[in-house]
Amino acid sequence: MGRVTIEPVFARLSSPHFHTAAMDGFAIRARSSFGAGPDRPVRLRIGEDAWPINTGHPIPPQTNAVIMIEDVNFLDDDSLEIEKALAPWRNVRRVGEDFVMSEMILPSRHRITAYELGALLAAGVTSIEVVKKPRVLLIPTGSELIPHQSLKDKDPAHGETVEFNTVMLAGLVESAGGIPVTSPIVPDDMESIRSALAEGVRSEANLIVINAGSSAGSEDFTAAAIKELGEVLVHGVAMMPGKPTILGIVGGKPVMGNPGYPVSAVFSFEVFGIPVLEAMLGSTGPQRPTVEAFTVRKIPSKLGREEFFRVRLGTVADRVVAAPLPRGAGSITTLTRADGILRIPPNSEGIDQASRVRVELLRDEDQIRRTVVVIGSHDLTLDILADQLVAHNLFLSSSHVGSLGGLLALKQRCAHFATSHLLDADSGDYNWPYVQKYIPEIPVRVFHGVMREQGFIVPKGNPKSINGFQDLTRDDVTFINRQAGAGTRVLLDYHLDREGIDPDQITGYPMEEYTHTSVAVAVLSGVADVGMGILAAARALDMDFVPVATEQYDLVIPEEFLNEEKVVTLLGVVRSPAFKERVLGLGGYGVDRTGEEVPKPEDAG
Amino acid sequence: MGRVTIEPVFARLSSPHFHTAAMDGFAIRARSSFGAGPDRPVRLRIGEDAWPINTGHPIPPQTNAVIMIEDVNFLDDDSLEIEKALAPWRNVRRVGEDFVMSEMILPSRHRITAYELGALLAAGVTSIEVVKKPRVLLIPTGSELIPHQSLKDKDPAHGETVEFNTVMLAGLVESAGGIPVTSPIVPDDMESIRSALAEGVRSEANLIVINAGSSAGSEDFTAAAIKELGEVLVHGVAMMPGKPTILGIVGGKPVMGNPGYPVSAVFSFEVFGIPVLEAMLGSTGPQRPTVEAFTVRKIPSKLGREEFFRVRLGTVADRVVAAPLPRGAGSITTLTRADGILRIPPNSEGIDQASRVRVELLRDEDQIRRTVVVIGSHDLTLDILADQLVAHNLFLSSSHVGSLGGLLALKQRCAHFATSHLLDADSGDYNWPYVQKYIPEIPVRVFHGVMREQGFIVPKGNPKSINGFQDLTRDDVTFINRQAGAGTRVLLDYHLDREGIDPDQITGYPMEEYTHTSVAVAVLSGVADVGMGILAAARALDMDFVPVATEQYDLVIPEEFLNEEKVVTLLGVVRSPAFKERVLGLGGYGVDRTGEEVPKPEDAG
Repeated sequence: MGRVTIEPVFARLSSPHFHTAAMDGFAIRARSSFGAGPDRPVRLRIGEDAWPINTGHPIPPQTNAVIMIEDVNFLDDDSLEIEKALAPWRNVRRVGEDFVMSEMILPSRHRITAYELGALLAAGVTSIEVVKKPRVLLIPTGSELIPHQSLKDKDPAHGETVEFNTVMLAGLVESAGGIPVTSPIVPDDMESIRSALAEGVRSEANLIVINAGSSAGSEDFTAAAIKELGEVLVHGVAMMPGKPTILGIVGGKPVMGNPGYPVSAVFSFEVFGIPVLEAMLGSTGPQRPTVEAFTVRKIPSKLGREEFFRVRLGTVADRVVAAPLPRGAGSITTLTRADGILRIPPNSEGIDQASRVRVELLRDEDQIRRTVVVIGSHDLTLDILADQLVAHNLFLSSSHVGSLGGLLALKQRCAHFATSHLLDADSGDYNWPYVQKYIPEIPVRVFHGVMREQGFIVPKGNPKSINGFQDLTRDDVTFINRQAGAGTRVLLDYHLDREGIDPDQITGYPMEEYTHTSVAVAVLSGVADVGMGILAAARALDMDFVPVATEQYDLVIPEEFLNEEKVVTLLGVVRSPAFKERVLGLGGYGVDRTGEEVPKPEDAG
Repeated sequence: MGRVTIEPVFARLSSPHFHTAAMDGFAIRARSSFGAGPDRPVRLRIGEDAWPINTGHPIPPQTNAVIMIEDVNFLDDDSLEIEKALAPWRNVRRVGEDFVMSEMILPSRHRITAYELGALLAAGVTSIEVVKKPRVLLIPTGSELIPHQSLKDKDPAHGETVEFNTVMLAGLVESAGGIPVTSPIVPDDMESIRSALAEGVRSEANLIVINAGSSAGSEDFTAAAIKELGEVLVHGVAMMPGKPTILGIVGGKPVMGNPGYPVSAVFSFEVFGIPVLEAMLGSTGPQRPTVEAFTVRKIPSKLGREEFFRVRLGTVADRVVAAPLPRGAGSITTLTRADGILRIPPNSEGIDQASRVRVELLRDEDQIRRTVVVIGSHDLTLDILADQLVAHNLFLSSSHVGSLGGLLALKQRCAHFATSHLLDADSGDYNWPYVQKYIPEIPVRVFHGVMREQGFIVPKGNPKSINGFQDLTRDDVTFINRQAGAGTRVLLDYHLDREGIDPDQITGYPMEEYTHTSVAVAVLSGVADVGMGILAAARALDMDFVPVATEQYDLVIPEEFLNEEKVVTLLGVVRSPAFKERVLGLGGYGVDRTGEEVPKPEDAG
C-alpha cells in the first residue's frame, strides 16, 4: 500500500475464475424452471435437477442458474418445488464478470491503495515491481543547534537551539513516500559543510537537503560548498517565506539548500523538494484539497513574490472565513495553528477584505465545518475551552485582536462570537455600552465568561517595588502596554484617568503587545519592568503579580448563531462544572456567574 | 507523527528561549543608533558599541537591536558606521515571540502532524503520552477461501477463491491508525467460527471483525457464534452494499460480522468499523474531501436504504461530471476504478440525470481536473492510452456504453470525446453519417483511431468449425451478442442483412454483453459457442479467431474541447510512435492513419 507501480499490472486470473453462486440456494439448469409459476410449481429432484450450493462456491458444470433458498419449497429429502422461472445465469457470477485475465488492473506509475491490494490478489497477482523509495539525506547545519536527543537530560543552555527542522522535513519526506535519513548536526564552517555534502553525494541518497545556511550572511557556506563540488542552478526564489532557497547539482544528484527559519524550511521543501521526490517516484503524492474562503481582513502582499499565508478557517454563516496568522517565518506555531495555506501570486499587491480566495486545506473540510470561530480579547481560558470542545468533536479557532476588534469583527460575520472585557467608565458596565455604541445594528446576546483579576505583572520578588499606578511614572520604570482597543488598555486608561496621570509620563506607554502572555514575556525577558495583565499569565511564567482590579470577561454572540448546534454545545461546555473547575485551577478567576446571560442594561431596569 | 495525544501538551520552554538575532549583522544598543541618517552617519566601536552576530544566535545582554550586515560600512578593524537609526528590538526575535513556556501546544486527542513534531521540540517537549494503537483482529471465514500466500507456487484450483478482503481491511485499519492482525482462514462451520471468536476475545484485540458469513444462508454462523458467546446488537443495516452487517459485543469487546462480497466488506467496515476504531483513538482520521458533481445519467436507488455508488469523475467544460460504475458488490474493480463515492440517502428513489450531487473523493481534486473523459465503444487500446497518459500527468476515465451511446453522451457535455466504429451500410462510411444523424447540432471533429479486425471469437481449435455467418444459424451453435447501439452489433447486422439471414434463426442473438472481453469470456466459459469481437480480445484469452472484416475505430471530439490542453496532449499521445507500437503489439490492429483527421464526407468531395 502506498508504493508506486513501475509497469502496468495485468490480471493473471479472471475474476471470478469459475461460475460462482451469487446466492445460497440450489444450482439448476435454467431450462428446468421454465414454465414455473405461483399456480404451476415445478418439481425438481435434488442431486439430479438441483444441487445445494452456497454463495461463493462453483456451480456444477451442467447448471447455469441458482434459485435462492427462500424461493424453494422442500417436498421431501429428495425433491423440492419452485414457483418461479429463472433466466439463464440468474444469481450466478460468471467467469470474468468483474475482469478477465490479461486485463490491465493498474497502470504504471500508480500509487497502490488498500482497495487495489484486493484487486491485485483477485487477479492472482502476488508480486509486482514497485519504484524504490527515494532516500532523502537531511543535513542540519548551525553551530547554535543541539540535537533533540540531548534534551532528555537537561534544558538547552542560553544560546542553544534545539534542531527540529529536519524532524519536520523527515515527516514530509515520509508522507510523500520517501525514506528520510538525517545526518548529525554540522557546524557552521565551510570545511564541515563541504565534507558533509561530499559524503552525502557518495552515499545512497537520491536527494540532499542542507538545512539552513542558505542566505547571504557570514556563515552561509551552503551555496559555496555546492558551487565548489558541483553547480548552483538557483540561488534565491520569488517566494516568501522561503526566498533564500538554493538548488544545485553535485555529482549528478540534486542538492537543495534550504532556509533556516522553520516555516521557510517547510515551504521551501514543499515547493522544491517534494516535487523532486515525486518525480523520482514517478507519481505525485496526495495533494491538499482546496476550499473557497472569504478573507476576514485585507492581506497586503509584496509584489514580485509569491507569498504563503498561514490562515485559520472556520465556517460562519455558511461561508468559510479565512483569518491570516502572523507572517513571521520563525514562528512554527503559525504552521501548527493554521487550517490552510493561502498563496498570493507574485503579481498581486494583496487581497482586499471579504475577497473570495482559494485556500489549500491542512485539515479536513469536515473539521473546518466543526470549527467555532472566536475573535476578540485573549484569555488563557480559551485554551481550556478549545481542549474541552475536542471531546464534542468541535474545534475552536481564536484570533486575538483585542476586545473592540472582536466586536467589530461581528459586523463582518466573520466569527461566531467575540470575547470582550471593555469597561465603560461612565456607567461602570462592561461590554454592553460598547456593543450599543459600535455595533448597534447587530442583534447580539452577551453571556458571562469569567471574572478575572487584572494587575501588574512584575519579575519574581517585584524588584522595582511597583505597587500602584503612580509607580509607572517613575524614571527607573519601563512599562509595556497593550494595543489600543484591548480591554486591558481601556482598564489602564480608566485608572490613569482616575488618578490624574498623563500617559506621556510613562516610559514605554507606546510599546504595545497583543496578549497577556506576551506582556509577561516582555517583563520576564527584561524588555520592560512591568506590564498590566491577568494573574494566570504571571503565574504561568512564575512571575509576581500585584492585583489592581477584578474585571468581567464576556462572550458576545450574535443572535443568528445562538441556535447553531456548535454554539449551543460551546455554551454547554462553558456552563459545565468540568470547565469551571479547570478555570479555577489557573488561579485569578471567578466562575460564579460563568455562562449566565448578561442582560442588556435597559432590560435590567 | 500520526499518533494521538492523550492530554493537552504544554510548552516547557518559550520559543525562542533567548533574545535571538533575526539577521546577520551587529548587535547594538538601539539608543546608540538614534540620530543616524544618510547624511549623519554614527560611528560604533566593534566590541564596545557593536558585536558581530549571526542569525539564530543570542544577542549580548546589553544590546537590544541588530543592524543588518548590508547596512554597515566598515571603517577599520575596530569600527564601523551606520546611516540608519534602529527602533529597540529591531531584527531581534524576542524571548517567547512565538510562544511562551506553559502555553498549550497541542490539545488532547489530537493527531500529530509533521509540523507539530517541530513545535513540540521547539517547546522542549521530547516525550508525551499517546493513545495506544487499537488492535483490530480480522478473521476471514469461508471453506472456499485459500490464503494469497499459497498462490506463489500455483494457481487456485477450480472452486478456490483467494482471500483478499482482510488484506483490504488491514490497509484501512492501518490508514485509520490501528494495528491490523489477521487470523488464519476459518472454515465455514459453527464450531470453528465460535472458537476463533472466543480466542479473539481472549487476545489483545480491541475490535474483532469476522469477514463473511453474515447473511442468512446455511453457512452463516457468525451471528449464531456472537449470540452464543455474547450479544448481537444489530443484524442487518439499511445500506447497500453492506446490508447483512452484524454488530455485537462479546466479553466487553465490539465484534463485527462483515459481509463477504468485497465491496460490501469495505463499505460495511468503513461505515461501522472505522468509527469504532476512531472512538478508541479519540480522534477521527483523515476524512475524504467532497466535490460537487453533475450526474451523467439517471441513477435509480432503492427506497429505505442508503446506497453507495462508486462513480468515475472528470472535469468536462468546467464541471465535474459523475458516471456511476456497475452496482455489483462482488466487483472489486468498481472500487479500484472509482474516483468517488456517491451516497444516495434512504429516503430517495434516486437521482435524475444532470443533478447536482456531492461526491466523496477517492482521488485528489487535482487528479479529477487532470482526467480526460471518454464514453463510447470499448477497445483494448484505451488501456494503452490510459497508461501512456500517466507519463503526462493525465488520467483517462472511460465508460463503455457502445458507439451510439458515446455519441449521444456528447450531447450532455459529459465527455471530452466519444469512441465509435459505426458503419453506415448505405455509404460504407464510418461514424460521420451517425454523427450527422444523431448529433447534428454538436460541432465535432473526427480523428482516426485504429483499424481493427473483427471476427468470430471461438474456443481454441474452433471445435464447432464456425467459418461464416451461416454457421451461426446452426442448431448446435449458441451465439453471444453485443448490445444494441454497439458498433460490433451494427457490423453483425450489416453482414446478416447482406447474407439474408434472419436474426431469429440465431440461438443466443438476444443475449447481450457490453464489451469485447466479456463476449470472449462468455465463449471461454461455455456460456456460448461463438461471439463477435476483435482479435485482441481473443488473443488476450488465448482463444481462436475467425476474421470477418476490418473496421474503423475513431475518436469523435467536440470542437469546444479541441484546444483544451489535456485533449491536445491526448491527441499527441495517439499520434506518437510509442503508442502505435504498443497497439501493433496487441495484434489485429492497423495504425497507418492513426491520429489523422477524418474529413466530413461532403468536405471530402
